[in-house]
Amino acid sequence: MSFKLKLKAPLEPTEFMGAEYDLVIVGGGPAGLAAALYSTRYFLKAIVVTERIGGYLSEIQSIDNYLGIPGIRGAELMEKFVAHVSTYGVPIVVDKVTEVTRNGSLWIVSTEMGRRLRTRAVIIATGSKRKKLGVPGEERLIGRGVSYCAACDGPLFKNKAVAVIGGGNSALSSSIYLASICSKVYLIHRRDSFRAFPIYVEAVKSNPRIELLLNSVVKEIIGEEKVEAVRVINVVNGGESIVKVDGVFVEIGLEPDKEFFKKIGLEVDDSGHAVVKPDMSTNLPGIFVAGDAAGGPYKYRFEQVITAAAEGAIAADAAFKYILKTKTLAT
Amino acid sequence: MSFKLKLKAPLEPTEFMGAEYDLVIVGGGPAGLAAALYSTRYFLKAIVVTERIGGYLSEIQSIDNYLGIPGIRGAELMEKFVAHVSTYGVPIVVDKVTEVTRNGSLWIVSTEMGRRLRTRAVIIATGSKRKKLGVPGEERLIGRGVSYCAACDGPLFKNKAVAVIGGGNSALSSSIYLASICSKVYLIHRRDSFRAFPIYVEAVKSNPRIELLLNSVVKEIIGEEKVEAVRVINVVNGGESIVKVDGVFVEIGLEPDKEFFKKIGLEVDDSGHAVVKPDMSTNLPGIFVAGDAAGGPYKYRFEQVITAAAEGAIAADAAFKYILKTKTLAT
Repeated sequence: MSFKLKLKAPLEPTEFMGAEYDLVIVGGGPAGLAAALYSTRYFLKAIVVTERIGGYLSEIQSIDNYLGIPGIRGAELMEKFVAHVSTYGVPIVVDKVTEVTRNGSLWIVSTEMGRRLRTRAVIIATGSKRKKLGVPGEERLIGRGVSYCAACDGPLFKNKAVAVIGGGNSALSSSIYLASICSKVYLIHRRDSFRAFPIYVEAVKSNPRIELLLNSVVKEIIGEEKVEAVRVINVVNGGESIVKVDGVFVEIGLEPDKEFFKKIGLEVDDSGHAVVKPDMSTNLPGIFVAGDAAGGPYKYRFEQVITAAAEGAIAADAAFKYILKTKTLAT
Repeated sequence: MSFKLKLKAPLEPTEFMGAEYDLVIVGGGPAGLAAALYSTRYFLKAIVVTERIGGYLSEIQSIDNYLGIPGIRGAELMEKFVAHVSTYGVPIVVDKVTEVTRNGSLWIVSTEMGRRLRTRAVIIATGSKRKKLGVPGEERLIGRGVSYCAACDGPLFKNKAVAVIGGGNSALSSSIYLASICSKVYLIHRRDSFRAFPIYVEAVKSNPRIELLLNSVVKEIIGEEKVEAVRVINVVNGGESIVKVDGVFVEIGLEPDKEFFKKIGLEVDDSGHAVVKPDMSTNLPGIFVAGDAAGGPYKYRFEQVITAAAEGAIAADAAFKYILKTKTLAT
């Protein structure tokens, strides 16, 4: 990154002894960082704990949907977000939250590195993780041709042939990006139409380097030391074909970490998203969920940077009101 | 403004004859402009009709809550928004919508200048207007010392004494701004505490030019040709005082145009906001409401630029799905 983050030293003694906060924000994507920004409007003693700064956003090749900031790399937009939050000195630490447990009127947030943060409220903004295909060869060839991030790994496949699997916005935008690097992109989708922005569909269809394999599913990823081909079945006529590729990009969607949600006792919906009320509160008092991780009947899921950031802002406002109701602020 | 807007000529013949659109967006603040930006992702034939470009945002002196764009004048942020939308050529016309009526499967949006726009869907993002005090002298002295916009009219009161009436975020941020221009600011609030960001409360209390008149209401604005004083009653002890000021800034909150909503048949809640579902749809099929104008039980009202913009994005996505379900796109 091109600027200095105010990262706290990883292991401060007070954190092990149970430093007290008003608000612990779990996740450093747009939702978590917006929550951090708003927490400063309320003088909350807040901290952001994130596995990686910027979240999924960092991987997006180009984003033109964030009103006011046209055409920018995801990583660069994330830098702007972090820089904005950093002007207020909210600490951002890289660590993985493993547990959130109740202790009297407080919550204890525990981490992999051994932090033990006592806090009045928690905002969980952990976003989503990529779904796996679940076919033979996939796990074994990860990092050897199988990738879940075109923006990260695309340049490794310069002038080579790759397959992109999926039919949504990320599959299509990845295909468009990869076609600018690779000699050939097979876009493999199990339906005969795409669930994506028409602007992407148009771009994919008119790109001579992209070949569409519709009504098709990948049954196996083939290769000894590295990816050599994919075995594709046409779901309409049952025909099988072997498509030679050097890389496979799996872009079949995202899902939140529902196991973590269940572990801490959060109610989840059918798709594994935490059920939130309009103020991003949950079934657990003092725990809020914002961004892609949030779902349930009160929320229209539309996973965009602007919607995640808005939910982070709302969660911070609601957390402040919750804290005011329960106790005075941490000093 | 510092750049050229692609404003359409005000009176195009096809508009009078009933130009056909997929989407008419009413209002040019953050919600309307975000909806316009997203409409381009779906190739919707869209138009923005707004009484003034930028909406209420243009008047805000300084905004530091929009993640990624630190400390900026409202008008400047609005320029960034309009510039972003303009790269896609969505027409933005300055005109006032007077009626929205149903005609078969379409809606007809009629305007003061005589436009008659036929459209499949409408997003209403008209925001809120300032509430008036409703005391003697107020109407008569508007523009002669009575103002509803500190950022617009503040500079007229250089080295003079002014009163700000209200106790929310806009009253407090206006007071802070005015204290940098005026010799004295009386902040008059009917309660003994503020409903505002603590960061503002702190700044108001520590500013030597700001004097707080709490538990106090203004009963009259006094002056012949221009504002000379306000008559203030202390609601606790009933005491009356005359406070000499040259200007009065009324900042007692905002309310949406509920008369317009009722006229077109939109369901409104107790506070006059249009009732929206999580996807910003309303009781009228094809009509969506986004931003400060929207309310109802599914929405947590938190009137911020980021939340308005997110709702505009959601409304555009939902409008697109609605249009797909009802008919093919306009050509």
